[in-house]
Amino acid sequence: MAIDIQPVQPLTSRAYKSEDTVIEVGKHRIGGGTLTLIGGPCSIESVDQVMSVADSIKNAGGQVLRGGAFKPRTSPYSFQGMGGDGLKILKKAGMQNDIPVITEVMSTDDFEAVEASADIIQIGARNMQNFHLLKRAGKSQKPILLKRGLSATIDEWLNAAEYIMAEGNSQVILCERGIRTFENYTRNTLDLSAIVAVKTLSHLPIIIDPSHATGRKEMVPAMAKAAIAAGADGLMIEVHNDPENALCDGPQSLKPEEFSVLADELRKIHEVVHNA
Amino acid sequence: MAIDIQPVQPLTSRAYKSEDTVIEVGKHRIGGGTLTLIGGPCSIESVDQVMSVADSIKNAGGQVLRGGAFKPRTSPYSFQGMGGDGLKILKKAGMQNDIPVITEVMSTDDFEAVEASADIIQIGARNMQNFHLLKRAGKSQKPILLKRGLSATIDEWLNAAEYIMAEGNSQVILCERGIRTFENYTRNTLDLSAIVAVKTLSHLPIIIDPSHATGRKEMVPAMAKAAIAAGADGLMIEVHNDPENALCDGPQSLKPEEFSVLADELRKIHEVVHNA
Amino acid sequence: MAIDIQPVQPLTSRAYKSEDTVIEVGKHRIGGGTLTLIGGPCSIESVDQVMSVADSIKNAGGQVLRGGAFKPRTSPYSFQGMGGDGLKILKKAGMQNDIPVITEVMSTDDFEAVEASADIIQIGARNMQNFHLLKRAGKSQKPILLKRGLSATIDEWLNAAEYIMAEGNSQVILCERGIRTFENYTRNTLDLSAIVAVKTLSHLPIIIDPSHATGRKEMVPAMAKAAIAAGADGLMIEVHNDPENALCDGPQSLKPEEFSVLADELRKIHEVVHNA
Amino acid sequence: MAIDIQPVQPLTSRAYKSEDTVIEVGKHRIGGGTLTLIGGPCSIESVDQVMSVADSIKNAGGQVLRGGAFKPRTSPYSFQGMGGDGLKILKKAGMQNDIPVITEVMSTDDFEAVEASADIIQIGARNMQNFHLLKRAGKSQKPILLKRGLSATIDEWLNAAEYIMAEGNSQVILCERGIRTFENYTRNTLDLSAIVAVKTLSHLPIIIDPSHATGRKEMVPAMAKAAIAAGADGLMIEVHNDPENALCDGPQSLKPEEFSVLADELRKIHEVVHNA
Repeated sequence: MAIDIQPVQPLTSRAYKSEDTVIEVGKHRIGGGTLTLIGGPCSIESVDQVMSVADSIKNAGGQVLRGGAFKPRTSPYSFQGMGGDGLKILKKAGMQNDIPVITEVMSTDDFEAVEASADIIQIGARNMQNFHLLKRAGKSQKPILLKRGLSATIDEWLNAAEYIMAEGNSQVILCERGIRTFENYTRNTLDLSAIVAVKTLSHLPIIIDPSHATGRKEMVPAMAKAAIAAGADGLMIEVHNDPENALCDGPQSLKPEEFSVLADELRKIHEVVHNA
Repeated sequence: MAIDIQPVQPLTSRAYKSEDTVIEVGKHRIGGGTLTLIGGPCSIESVDQVMSVADSIKNAGGQVLRGGAFKPRTSPYSFQGMGGDGLKILKKAGMQNDIPVITEVMSTDDFEAVEASADIIQIGARNMQNFHLLKRAGKSQKPILLKRGLSATIDEWLNAAEYIMAEGNSQVILCERGIRTFENYTRNTLDLSAIVAVKTLSHLPIIIDPSHATGRKEMVPAMAKAAIAAGADGLMIEVHNDPENALCDGPQSLKPEEFSVLADELRKIHEVVHNA
Repeated sequence: MAIDIQPVQPLTSRAYKSEDTVIEVGKHRIGGGTLTLIGGPCSIESVDQVMSVADSIKNAGGQVLRGGAFKPRTSPYSFQGMGGDGLKILKKAGMQNDIPVITEVMSTDDFEAVEASADIIQIGARNMQNFHLLKRAGKSQKPILLKRGLSATIDEWLNAAEYIMAEGNSQVILCERGIRTFENYTRNTLDLSAIVAVKTLSHLPIIIDPSHATGRKEMVPAMAKAAIAAGADGLMIEVHNDPENALCDGPQSLKPEEFSVLADELRKIHEVVHNA
Repeated sequence: MAIDIQPVQPLTSRAYKSEDTVIEVGKHRIGGGTLTLIGGPCSIESVDQVMSVADSIKNAGGQVLRGGAFKPRTSPYSFQGMGGDGLKILKKAGMQNDIPVITEVMSTDDFEAVEASADIIQIGARNMQNFHLLKRAGKSQKPILLKRGLSATIDEWLNAAEYIMAEGNSQVILCERGIRTFENYTRNTLDLSAIVAVKTLSHLPIIIDPSHATGRKEMVPAMAKAAIAAGADGLMIEVHNDPENALCDGPQSLKPEEFSVLADELRKIHEVVHNA
């Protein structure tokens, strides 16, 4: 059941491919020096909510809309997401606002449905070493955003990406979202040095999720700016039209107007870093 | 998609059920004061290998034979296990030696096949929060051995067990196999305080895997004895007839004669602890 | 300022000295197969308290009385210990009950005073890499108990012991007291695999402190038994005559009668392990 | 021995003092919106070396020269620094180049000598909870740069600063230098979220040491830029005129010309962040 032919160099490595991988999503290109801003709510809750946020993300210059239909939750009694109905809402919001969408897939059973609705398919931190899911993603034509596991080393993370690439899908975006440490002021510890490590070891684009990493909305702007200054290809940020009443992750969600202000600042830093 | 009715107390908790859960496997009972010894190779490699080890485990007084058919490997190019053929070998070895068998399931796709071959179904550390797999396990009639995730808190681990129990399967065995820390002398850090924590918070049996935790065979006997002294219900230990030539985890595997000597010592400590 | 002549093998290593180091304290020998039980309160609070506990420790078969005079506290506004007055009380209690005493030293300024009062001098986890204190300890004639730092690797810990031995004091006892991890059910994670690691790498005795490691008295007996089963040379356990009103660490302190019951169990396990 | 009167709010807290603390060193002000660049070698090795680097730091627009005279080393057999001779060289280099200097103090015994030579006194990560050293620093008239311990929570770090302030010295600069995690690609994991946490909880300035955190010179520029983008008050960067032959930490040291290029980029990012 192993891959028959092992490449001389891992497919994810700079040694295998020296130039940056660039992934096209709609008219936008992720990687290779561009700035990618992905925004949206943790959970899809209603048509109105997603439509409203989609409009805000686009107006702020964001290129991709995020929204969770299948939610990985620690407790079986927590809200598990809207499932298939959520996928429909997300797809509709993307089409009506002409913005690509990303959503998480949690099992091979749901893969086809997610694939039909999303422009980018997310594999979450808890599934980073769900090898069957990785292999299924490797057979997809859609780009895969692969989050780093909570306690995954960079080597293990790149090997997880290798599972996808070894099956034929070379469109992998890496996403750092905080690692588990002893520090408990933040939900996790955002490891921005992973940006430089990934850029050195691999040709794949890397984006940062400061919302899940910190779990605190007041930290999101500073860490977002830091990520771009460190050379990240983009950000995935939680944006909710009504954070106080969000079904999930309200305390870490920006309001649309806050996202818009931040997007302006991020573009300025991106320009300084890339013209420096 | 959420569970409709949340119990007043979690199903895994002592508050919900005060007496110890005891799980029957063949003629053996796991939990409730007995000593359970599970042994066998990391990977099923051949009929002869498994037959030989099965005989040794049984002669040493072990009650369950382990053997991996589907192997979760960091790299896609590493040996991924014998799959279905391995399941057949394991089942045959169990029947011929009249010893129950345990093996790992990695995906819902393989669940039925594993269920048909194994007396206990293992969910590994990397899949502890693969919620679809947990839900499928909850629909099984077979006992589930749920390993603690590499960086899972005890609370998250019990919530993962809750996913299984909430679907109707109350036969869950917890297995601590080391957590990820900064220390690198051992592969992981075996957290034996989890035994007392689990016994306090839950009625479920807990066993310890000192082989994967330490990654060093010379540490296995001491940590196995410590686990029993601390009140664990049993152990899962890697035993290989030819560790030097094992396809997987040779450096942490005991030889059959070493397992036999250790089993004697463990029974003595178990007796002292339970008669004290 | 470096040590002039580096030994071919570290002084702490088995390669330098193959037989176990045995340290004599009064009539008791620490290491080499004996069982050492150290008990007493976190903080010295009064003459009556220490006298009462000293009597209990001795009656339970304990060989060393512990008690803190200088207390390392996270906040400058917490009780910092009785200082010199505490040393006098501890020394008197030891002499009147004919039991050796151990107490912590926090600075070179207090070293002489501690040296004059204690039979064993403790260097705490926070000072494990306070190299000036280590060098001073190396010039003492008294045995040094060196706690492992909260996030010290075993290699760093042995190097800290090397600082002491390189100055001429070969009487070093290592003490594992829990390492800092992500798990927060326990105060720290007790790393019992350190026992086997130290026994493999070094000839120095190692004892375990389950009280500080877990921060929970209900966990102390199980972890104490586990430590002896794993081959530790002894234990340091917090015992207080009135834990509910202790000035420090009450929730992790055993009552004298609980210590006495535990000591009996520990002797039985020690016997099984050493006759096996 | 405790502090007699505990303030209603910790002295380090924003609740106690809402405006940013600004610390004057020569003509430069640290904190309050300025950019502070500290550079220099890990160890003072010779007059020529320090003179050469001092000149480079100043020309690049750096405001403070660093250099270690007393070096905390894991092994007692590693180079321990030039001690008092090193202090003299550093002081001379600072005066001749008209640039303030910072150096580490490791014990109360050496405090007076360091105080006489340095404009800022550094307390290293390993001594963050060396409470006697903190109390001595609290009696000094010189600013204290307090590094975060390898596994210190932000709360413990601020409490360590509180020890200094409670003794009367309000000139404390905090310095994040990486925390210990499971990841081993970098030497430690630089926790830039600490910047926002400190800015929220405290009025004290915070600077970042990307050199010790990553242990890799190729990562220093990206992490330095990230730190400034996240709102840090400055940076401490290892600069060596001949990294290949450095007695200490060569692999993480920038050459003077690299530091100069980086300083330009940092000023641009600082301007964008503070005018945004």
